[in-house]
Amino acid sequence: MKSGGGGESTTIDIEARSASKGKGPVMAVHHVKEEKGGMVRGMAIIDLVLRIGAIVAALAAAATMGTSDQNLPFFTQFFQFEASYDDMPSFQFFLIAMSLVAGYLVLSLPFSVVCIVRPHASGPRLLLLILDLVALTLATSAAGAATSIVYLAHNGNSSSNWLAICNQFGDFCRNVSGAVVASFVTVVTFMFLILLSALALRKHH
Amino acid sequence: MKSGGGGESTTIDIEARSASKGKGPVMAVHHVKEEKGGMVRGMAIIDLVLRIGAIVAALAAAATMGTSDQNLPFFTQFFQFEASYDDMPSFQFFLIAMSLVAGYLVLSLPFSVVCIVRPHASGPRLLLLILDLVALTLATSAAGAATSIVYLAHNGNSSSNWLAICNQFGDFCRNVSGAVVASFVTVVTFMFLILLSALALRKHH
Repeated sequence: MKSGGGGESTTIDIEARSASKGKGPVMAVHHVKEEKGGMVRGMAIIDLVLRIGAIVAALAAAATMGTSDQNLPFFTQFFQFEASYDDMPSFQFFLIAMSLVAGYLVLSLPFSVVCIVRPHASGPRLLLLILDLVALTLATSAAGAATSIVYLAHNGNSSSNWLAICNQFGDFCRNVSGAVVASFVTVVTFMFLILLSALALRKHH
Repeated sequence: MKSGGGGESTTIDIEARSASKGKGPVMAVHHVKEEKGGMVRGMAIIDLVLRIGAIVAALAAAATMGTSDQNLPFFTQFFQFEASYDDMPSFQFFLIAMSLVAGYLVLSLPFSVVCIVRPHASGPRLLLLILDLVALTLATSAAGAATSIVYLAHNGNSSSNWLAICNQFGDFCRNVSGAVVASFVTVVTFMFLILLSALALRKHH
């Protein structure tokens, strides 16, 4: 009975310290949480790997979009017959957003490494989750905007009399479509990153 | 020394039960966590309020888009002079996506109530976070796609020879722009919802 009461007070002590600092109990009950720490550490390693994959996808999207200009081998006095991402504000937004996302991902790598080294620190993980959320929204809206323009370029729209331009600029359209696909890969990777962060925050305590 | 050892084993017991069920320790150390439970409960109440706001915004977006057809008071044999969301695949996608999001939000209300009643249950909260993430991506891509078409309808694009149609269909364009604004309100609300879920998961025991 006495021993049980002591047990409860020890628990309370650990809970209280966990609430105030989030750092003390790592040392205090380290031997208890060896397995759990390993699991959280594994999640952090997956986080780093996914993050590198997202960098590749975002850079591929930005680079493909940025280099997707096509000149037709003839021109007249009035028309230039040149297609580039510059012509469409949505594609410009796509390029800027994807470059921002790629830059953010590179800058987030050190924080991801911190999460591997110290699996029980919840501060950097929460920061990553918030910034990932913003980057996810940015990447998704850019992907959606570019997708609708790509669809229009492929199919045109008869009711508003917008003609398809992919007949003339096939290479341009192929490049842009590839960039859109890469951006959706980035979006899906971000969804897994946020999910991993939330799971790791749940395991943390 | 004996009591200390007993205390540590009790801690391990609670940790283990917490890992397996997530329900046992709520009763065991309930009197300790009164304050923390109140904070998590407050977050759950904010979650419910934000969710209702998101329902209103998503329904407004879907309804505004769905009712945004405009007939011009004259017609010829060849042209119909009628604009509706049906003409644009991006607007159709917008309507479907926003209806899905609104439906999901209504169905998620009971889970949000469960989170208020039982602030320490992490299962429904994690479920809500995952589904919110999917709904956020759906709403954001729909908003981005509709935005780029609305921009095109307002400004046109000279290099691809797509003319602005908002000169003719002013009411249609105003309705659609309003729907896009409402969808971005939904997106921002979802970002706060996910953030709240992540914070509540962190606060959980």
